[in-house]
Amino acid sequence: CIPNSAGEAMTRRLRAGMVGGGPGAFIGAVHRQAMALTGQIELVAGAFASDAARSRATGQELGLSAQRGYASWEAMLEAEQRLPEDQRIELVVIVTPNHLHFPVARAFAQAGVHVVCDKPLVHTTAQAQELRRVVQVSGVLFGVTYNYTGYPMVRQAREMVRSGQLGDVRKVVVQYHQGWLATQLEREGNKQAGWRTDPVRSGVAGAVGDIGSHAENLLTTVTGLALEAICADLTTFVPGRALDDDASILLRFKGGAKGVLTASQIAVGQENDLSLQVYGTQGSLSWRQEDPNCLLYWPLSGGQQIWTRGSPQLSPAAQAATHLPAGHPEGFIDAFSNIYRGFAAALTARLERRVFDAETMAFPGLEEGIRGVRFIEKTVQSARSTERWTQVDQ
Amino acid sequence: CIPNSAGEAMTRRLRAGMVGGGPGAFIGAVHRQAMALTGQIELVAGAFASDAARSRATGQELGLSAQRGYASWEAMLEAEQRLPEDQRIELVVIVTPNHLHFPVARAFAQAGVHVVCDKPLVHTTAQAQELRRVVQVSGVLFGVTYNYTGYPMVRQAREMVRSGQLGDVRKVVVQYHQGWLATQLEREGNKQAGWRTDPVRSGVAGAVGDIGSHAENLLTTVTGLALEAICADLTTFVPGRALDDDASILLRFKGGAKGVLTASQIAVGQENDLSLQVYGTQGSLSWRQEDPNCLLYWPLSGGQQIWTRGSPQLSPAAQAATHLPAGHPEGFIDAFSNIYRGFAAALTARLERRVFDAETMAFPGLEEGIRGVRFIEKTVQSARSTERWTQVDQ
Amino acid sequence: CIPNSAGEAMTRRLRAGMVGGGPGAFIGAVHRQAMALTGQIELVAGAFASDAARSRATGQELGLSAQRGYASWEAMLEAEQRLPEDQRIELVVIVTPNHLHFPVARAFAQAGVHVVCDKPLVHTTAQAQELRRVVQVSGVLFGVTYNYTGYPMVRQAREMVRSGQLGDVRKVVVQYHQGWLATQLEREGNKQAGWRTDPVRSGVAGAVGDIGSHAENLLTTVTGLALEAICADLTTFVPGRALDDDASILLRFKGGAKGVLTASQIAVGQENDLSLQVYGTQGSLSWRQEDPNCLLYWPLSGGQQIWTRGSPQLSPAAQAATHLPAGHPEGFIDAFSNIYRGFAAALTARLERRVFDAETMAFPGLEEGIRGVRFIEKTVQSARSTERWTQVDQ
Amino acid sequence: CIPNSAGEAMTRRLRAGMVGGGPGAFIGAVHRQAMALTGQIELVAGAFASDAARSRATGQELGLSAQRGYASWEAMLEAEQRLPEDQRIELVVIVTPNHLHFPVARAFAQAGVHVVCDKPLVHTTAQAQELRRVVQVSGVLFGVTYNYTGYPMVRQAREMVRSGQLGDVRKVVVQYHQGWLATQLEREGNKQAGWRTDPVRSGVAGAVGDIGSHAENLLTTVTGLALEAICADLTTFVPGRALDDDASILLRFKGGAKGVLTASQIAVGQENDLSLQVYGTQGSLSWRQEDPNCLLYWPLSGGQQIWTRGSPQLSPAAQAATHLPAGHPEGFIDAFSNIYRGFAAALTARLERRVFDAETMAFPGLEEGIRGVRFIEKTVQSARSTERWTQVDQ
Repeated sequence: CIPNSAGEAMTRRLRAGMVGGGPGAFIGAVHRQAMALTGQIELVAGAFASDAARSRATGQELGLSAQRGYASWEAMLEAEQRLPEDQRIELVVIVTPNHLHFPVARAFAQAGVHVVCDKPLVHTTAQAQELRRVVQVSGVLFGVTYNYTGYPMVRQAREMVRSGQLGDVRKVVVQYHQGWLATQLEREGNKQAGWRTDPVRSGVAGAVGDIGSHAENLLTTVTGLALEAICADLTTFVPGRALDDDASILLRFKGGAKGVLTASQIAVGQENDLSLQVYGTQGSLSWRQEDPNCLLYWPLSGGQQIWTRGSPQLSPAAQAATHLPAGHPEGFIDAFSNIYRGFAAALTARLERRVFDAETMAFPGLEEGIRGVRFIEKTVQSARSTERWTQVDQ
Repeated sequence: CIPNSAGEAMTRRLRAGMVGGGPGAFIGAVHRQAMALTGQIELVAGAFASDAARSRATGQELGLSAQRGYASWEAMLEAEQRLPEDQRIELVVIVTPNHLHFPVARAFAQAGVHVVCDKPLVHTTAQAQELRRVVQVSGVLFGVTYNYTGYPMVRQAREMVRSGQLGDVRKVVVQYHQGWLATQLEREGNKQAGWRTDPVRSGVAGAVGDIGSHAENLLTTVTGLALEAICADLTTFVPGRALDDDASILLRFKGGAKGVLTASQIAVGQENDLSLQVYGTQGSLSWRQEDPNCLLYWPLSGGQQIWTRGSPQLSPAAQAATHLPAGHPEGFIDAFSNIYRGFAAALTARLERRVFDAETMAFPGLEEGIRGVRFIEKTVQSARSTERWTQVDQ
Repeated sequence: CIPNSAGEAMTRRLRAGMVGGGPGAFIGAVHRQAMALTGQIELVAGAFASDAARSRATGQELGLSAQRGYASWEAMLEAEQRLPEDQRIELVVIVTPNHLHFPVARAFAQAGVHVVCDKPLVHTTAQAQELRRVVQVSGVLFGVTYNYTGYPMVRQAREMVRSGQLGDVRKVVVQYHQGWLATQLEREGNKQAGWRTDPVRSGVAGAVGDIGSHAENLLTTVTGLALEAICADLTTFVPGRALDDDASILLRFKGGAKGVLTASQIAVGQENDLSLQVYGTQGSLSWRQEDPNCLLYWPLSGGQQIWTRGSPQLSPAAQAATHLPAGHPEGFIDAFSNIYRGFAAALTARLERRVFDAETMAFPGLEEGIRGVRFIEKTVQSARSTERWTQVDQ
Repeated sequence: CIPNSAGEAMTRRLRAGMVGGGPGAFIGAVHRQAMALTGQIELVAGAFASDAARSRATGQELGLSAQRGYASWEAMLEAEQRLPEDQRIELVVIVTPNHLHFPVARAFAQAGVHVVCDKPLVHTTAQAQELRRVVQVSGVLFGVTYNYTGYPMVRQAREMVRSGQLGDVRKVVVQYHQGWLATQLEREGNKQAGWRTDPVRSGVAGAVGDIGSHAENLLTTVTGLALEAICADLTTFVPGRALDDDASILLRFKGGAKGVLTASQIAVGQENDLSLQVYGTQGSLSWRQEDPNCLLYWPLSGGQQIWTRGSPQLSPAAQAATHLPAGHPEGFIDAFSNIYRGFAAALTARLERRVFDAETMAFPGLEEGIRGVRFIEKTVQSARSTERWTQVDQ
């Protein structure tokens, strides 16, 4: 019961609009809870569904004023831009199926609206580069919600690697297993399964795009390693499915480290089994998303230690992402909200022309998003190749 | 990634004022996060600190209008009552040290303001009964934030007992161990340690009042058993401390069940180690607060099962308290927010003159608070007694 | 895969005879496996069953010579004493139901045969004192198989307390829960359930005698604390049963430490859930029998450590009880064999007139057995008393 | 405390001689403990070390008669063959460094002595085929101590796959991580590290041969799948080391299943972290060697179950490998002894011209050994290849 600061020092809430997140969506409500938890962002507008009436109804349920539950994202963009500057949305949150990320993000960025976009960023590297160009021109702030790096103990792990506590990283094993797509759920009217297994809406990859990209981001963020080459074996186990639902990938990193990435959505019974093991010359780490308040640490000098969220010995970056005392479990939403806290802090600093401490309040941005798109593309390319290694130029 | 409803169906947010929760406080920020997560309650006023300037500053940090960061709770009560009915606070949230619970709750309840009060409710049964009288007269809704019963898997455990799945409960073991008071932290300027070890502000008990009462509420809520008699051994291990920091208690329940309760704040290294074991004629359960998304279940017919939050086989009460898919950990704040969701739903229903489904959206109320006060009193009485058993008349 | 010595330095095996352990027995086979694992004791004779033919058949199955599968323990004692000194048994292993421990142990001890006896030692303190007198006169070595103290990590825990690493012990919680007697198994022809629930064969206590005494021995061995007073609540939950099947006990130790002991055989689904928590001024420990290769340690200075069997930093006492490298799990039999290794080392040293290192090769002896009998008696006395505390004079 | 049979029905012990296992060896003592635990095999001879005096000394320490501690394995073979048939060794146990497996096994097999050989069987497939030829001619029984398949819960897992409870296996992940070779231990005089990193004594592979082959055997035994092709990335992380100390391997099985195998001996802090995950169309399994009494099971119909050793619902194969009641942990030696129990049962049956129940008392034999050698060869071949997939013809 040691007091801590919940990072509540705000005098004005940022005004956000949401694209997607209507009835039947999963991730929209998650983003809304995450924003609410920050106390720094207020949802004031939305184009929640492709159907105008359903979008409006969602807006009303969420307590928005009636005219700001828009019939389409284009309508929202247009109408909001006509509002006085101190009323219009300052950021857009894009939580649609993947295929809409690109047009929506590009349009809002072009209009000078800051962007938070779900992952994977877009379908292709070509789109990603176009988006980079637009963002560079408009100068908007751009966040991508690789939410798992919002966990305090992930940030602690990253700091332990960065500070040299693990020595040189030699081997990395990352696993992301789910079981929810082990059967033909997409044929049973499940909306989530529907779009995620549909190449038009999901992109060139299935499990690799949906969860493999989280695994890539997690391992890259924690280790700071750059992929050099990969060898991927993608499989579609469920009959009739167009995209992969399982991936086994060998990883080679610049500098000589090696790794293994396994991602699967046919792993019966697994809920959200994302885990990371990092082995260095001076120590090792292990972290499991389903037990996120713990970080296992083995120094070379011997013994096993369990570092827990909220402990005084943690790094400033981990402390800054912590909102409750040790032993009071933080979870998925708390971690997700840290991405938004980082984004809100950066945006507020920019609006107030202040310097922003990117070290302790980091959030994944456009470059992480572009790297993720490339990873997905290269994985699919590797799986189709007869060559052993597919280079990942970065 | 199965979609679920986050219970977001609200068209108007309830207006809340807070008493306590200023700089250095722990639980105030928790309540604010929990309220924010519901999306149903808006904090619009507060008397956050005994110092007027600090109260006002906290209000401003939280984005409140300047005049609603009050110099005292008395000032807040008076000023808010003068506001138009559609602007004034509808509920007060009391997060002060324990000794202020009684006067503040009584005053706001008398004025017709609904109350959410932290635990333990008040210092004495006499106060508790006076409060009950006031609440009965004024008719306000009264919640007590025994937050651990907000966890979905605790609600699942309760339903499994209620439905007879465990048969008759025979033995209950509840443990609540923390280590943060293993040294004289109260002498080092720690604000939390200061008031919690001070009889004037904390009441007649230390560890028993602070965490033992949570343990009592947890076991009673889950098992539905009524205490018949207790035999308590209270100890003050840290020199110079005025209140107990450790408790070992034998429990006898009406109907013949037996139990053990151990609570300690000198258990070095333990963060928030609250756990419950329930053994019935037909099965057993075990739950740990630090791993709250799991419930261990052993049916008499054999085998061990791990039931996880978000699973389709859970009871409606557990489902209603769930906001994320399985495998996406919910934590302390999510559970805490369920108490507020229940209170908000009940209050909204009352304001809209609708029937409220108390089964699936329950929250602990005045009677649970009164029971907790009696438990604390009886524990202290037992510890001082030369008799073996102290009756707990209920 | 670091080599270690399995303590194999023996040139001659000790000759043992067994009383009990015939068909349907559980613990006899355990003792035989434990002895075999030491490589230091050879079973050469036995009175395995009350039925002569069954005893002989068991002897033959075990590869004994035909004439040394005796019809009764009296016959074994008589016949073995007539054998040449270099052939007759040097120790007797008593694995009968409890009521036979006393007459068998007394007779063999009187005859100068060294004794290993299962726990609880005997039925009454009067018997225990008579046995002590006999052993003092005859000078035989006497071991009692409180096997759980044979685990290396229990010995490590003991050393950590003894060395002051935990400071002064303040609070101890020991739990021993099983579920196998949750129903009337004794009515279904189960031989183990039959004698353990029968006062004539089991003694004055049920769960307390069978497993509570293990819990008492474990906590006393690890902490070195002496019981001052207890307050016990014993229950017989299963209808028709003559002895307790559940116990909840408050403990007070000389010097001011407090504790809780809960033992139950009606804890549905629990297999052999023996655990110990020790909280000191400088650190805490936790150990679980079902995960015996780990010892959790929390130093006051912060953090949680998992100490594992086979680690180089462990104490000599723990190292001496370790036979496999870390990560290669040792289990129940390995721990049990450590009791026999200790006994064999002590007996061999005595036979060879050498000094014996009791520190690293300890085994529980007559005094531990007598203490256990007194604990059982005092628990039953306390449960029947109207007084709060029952003194445990030691 | 439910009684069980320890499989003790033997009237005569088999006579064994050991090659290797002298001072400084690890695995020799393990084999001796495992044999002792069976109660069915007696060690009567040995050529424990290349130095005659040390071999003799070891024999004496182990209680062997002086003349049967031989100066060399050749001397043992010759001398034992000259003993009367009812005194000479019936089986030889080979626990030398790998390079001696082939000549020793061949010589004893040719002489009609049954063989138990440690893994990996031999250095090359050519040797393996030669050995197969010799064994076929001489007709001796041949066991290879892939000891991890001796765990009851591994046998349970195998039966669950075989019975169709998991449906068709789709994905397998096997991990075997150790940290003991993370530094240049072989330069510090560590005998184990010395020979295992020496190509002359260890063979063409390091980690792959030492532990990767265990992983291959475990996954093949449990799933019954046959490898079709592999893609291996082998690394030598520790400078100056001649053999791999890390392996990451993609697996393709006949019939379409996929897999990942990671083996490492530079995983700092990991003791003996062997684990297996099996995902089928109807359910999943997970097992960890460091927690070997549990098997996690997720049926497609929902929920997680923990199956524990000793439970009544387990398969006959698992029951037959179980020697203690549930909750009384069995460990590494108990599992290892099951290999010997199976071998002893088969050999006794053969000597007594009885039929042997291979289903419940299986042990890994020559074919498993040959398969392991081929796996090691193919892994090294794959790692050196520029082709993506290396076929594993079986």
